[in-house]
Amino acid sequence: MTKTIHITVAENILRANDEIAAENKLLLKNSNVLALNIMASPGAGKTSFILKTIALLSNIYHIGVIEGDTSAATLDADKVTSLGLPAVQINTGGNCHLDANMVQNGLMKLPLADLDIVLVENVGNLVCPAAFKLGTYKNVLIASIPEGDDKPYKYPAMYSAVDVLVINKIDLLPYIPFNMDYYIDGVRMLNPDLISFPVSCTTDAGLPAWMDWLENTLHEYRYN
Amino acid sequence: MTKTIHITVAENILRANDEIAAENKLLLKNSNVLALNIMASPGAGKTSFILKTIALLSNIYHIGVIEGDTSAATLDADKVTSLGLPAVQINTGGNCHLDANMVQNGLMKLPLADLDIVLVENVGNLVCPAAFKLGTYKNVLIASIPEGDDKPYKYPAMYSAVDVLVINKIDLLPYIPFNMDYYIDGVRMLNPDLISFPVSCTTDAGLPAWMDWLENTLHEYRYN
Repeated sequence: MTKTIHITVAENILRANDEIAAENKLLLKNSNVLALNIMASPGAGKTSFILKTIALLSNIYHIGVIEGDTSAATLDADKVTSLGLPAVQINTGGNCHLDANMVQNGLMKLPLADLDIVLVENVGNLVCPAAFKLGTYKNVLIASIPEGDDKPYKYPAMYSAVDVLVINKIDLLPYIPFNMDYYIDGVRMLNPDLISFPVSCTTDAGLPAWMDWLENTLHEYRYN
Repeated sequence: MTKTIHITVAENILRANDEIAAENKLLLKNSNVLALNIMASPGAGKTSFILKTIALLSNIYHIGVIEGDTSAATLDADKVTSLGLPAVQINTGGNCHLDANMVQNGLMKLPLADLDIVLVENVGNLVCPAAFKLGTYKNVLIASIPEGDDKPYKYPAMYSAVDVLVINKIDLLPYIPFNMDYYIDGVRMLNPDLISFPVSCTTDAGLPAWMDWLENTLHEYRYN
């Protein structure tokens, strides 16, 4: 009985979330702002990747950031604002993912009319964020070499739910057993057309290809 | 309104979970079996750590394993059973954590009368598992160096909820910027008496201290 109620409530919550996500999508489209939902395991390097993207593109595009955290710690938002960019921190109050309503509140606090791109850093979690649409144009998963090559097999919902895969920390490949073929086989099984970018935010390897993709995607979003 | 219902249901679920966790605790005590709830971020090395613990102690103690996964993939359980040890795989069906009921089902399938220790590998997640008691004697968090030194600040609920901290992959310290003082300050702030074991499952560094702790804890559990 409790379980039935729980499932119904969960379905209602997801439906309500999808409606707000659709509002966010419209708001972003009307503002001509491309938004990315950046998901990852804790410590995969979401913040470093966002800071690198900012460093390489903020002279061309205006970028804003929404930082999702389970606590009040503003560490990541502080890193963005110290670069002079607009950032909003969302404290989920212990919740394990961002939802569309939280992101809508974040978007309201950003100067959307002045922005080209909004990067949304979700809570570090390979399970829950996959179920909640935020209204972003693309869902991005940042994986990292130290997590191991079995992650697609163990977190299939997340790997199935994303549009783009960034494989971070490839500079650590010499020090860690990681079978790239096994990993990519797992990815392809779940998400055959997933575009992927092996990168290192330490050596900058692979980042130009990511930049190209982001610029092309912004163009596609605006003019197609 | 939906939110009020959701919170009430969540409270009911947690209360029901706690009751089953208490049953598990009693079952384990009556069976004289020490159980550990092993939590971590995806890829922190839970399975490697469990396999190392088995390799070093299974000639002295009888160890069983419960493997929590969000999918049907039995990769980790297979690794344990290939060593000739009893292992039960629990597929959470996409759920982001183990709960006491799942663990009770797992315990029923293990030969408890023949075991000394049960290692429960939770779903890789630094948020949700912290809220769900399983009835284990101790909660163990496995952190890892590549996750970064800011994790206590960003996942305070998990760091507050555990009894033991294993800091894994210390062999990667030369290749990764990780300020151990900053990390430990964050841990102490949340959980001042947390016992911690820096280890490497690649070089075996630090594992003897972990083994001593586990043997002493088994003794304390059985005879105090």
